Amino acid sequence: MLNVDAFQEFKDGDVIIREGTYGDWVCVLIKGKVQISRVVKGEKLVVDELNEGDILGEFSFIDGEPRFATASAVGDVRIGIFNKMALDDEFNKLSKEFKEILFSIIKRLRNTTAKLSS
Amino acid sequence: MLNVDAFQEFKDGDVIIREGTYGDWVCVLIKGKVQISRVVKGEKLVVDELNEGDILGEFSFIDGEPRFATASAVGDVRIGIFNKMALDDEFNKLSKEFKEILFSIIKRLRNTTAKLSS
Repeated sequence: MLNVDAFQEFKDGDVIIREGTYGDWVCVLIKGKVQISRVVKGEKLVVDELNEGDILGEFSFIDGEPRFATASAVGDVRIGIFNKMALDDEFNKLSKEFKEILFSIIKRLRNTTAKLSS
Repeated sequence: MLNVDAFQEFKDGDVIIREGTYGDWVCVLIKGKVQISRVVKGEKLVVDELNEGDILGEFSFIDGEPRFATASAVGDVRIGIFNKMALDDEFNKLSKEFKEILFSIIKRLRNTTAKLSS
């Protein structure tokens, strides 16, 4: 079981993370489903659906850029929020080579997801 | 500048990493261009092109799965290979929460890239 620092519940349709906003929490989906969508040319486009055990918010945690997509609750949802200070501590201790690998992965993921939704 | 452990040069068309094989080196593209392709329904499909400074091989480094795509040299190419033992050491020291975030990212990246090439 993953250690989480805090919990939060959401109701159907609630926005958990809003595309384009700043934020750097990372959390794990403990209960329920989450819909991931992006606004493309003014239209909402569903790009993914997350299930229990899936992670939310990891793009911005790694690269500090605004939220890439909107995460909304589908039915009752419970998330566990990771201890951000502990994660930051670990991240900061990484070598520049390891960080570069992570940045590269996130850059590629933002690119492929953007291509997918275009 | 990133620290690399070893170098390797390739000529136009050489396969640097072959899709479906096992391997876990991670390297940075120092000189030249690299074409990333996948075989989909028997056809070679170009999914990306990497430039100087881009990272190669990071999917398998994180999740230990076979190589996801083929990387081929476009013209003369020089890569720098990261010290694998040092990277592994860093990876192994990460908390299970941090590792889970990385696994999640790679899983998503494999999914989106597979969708893109289908």
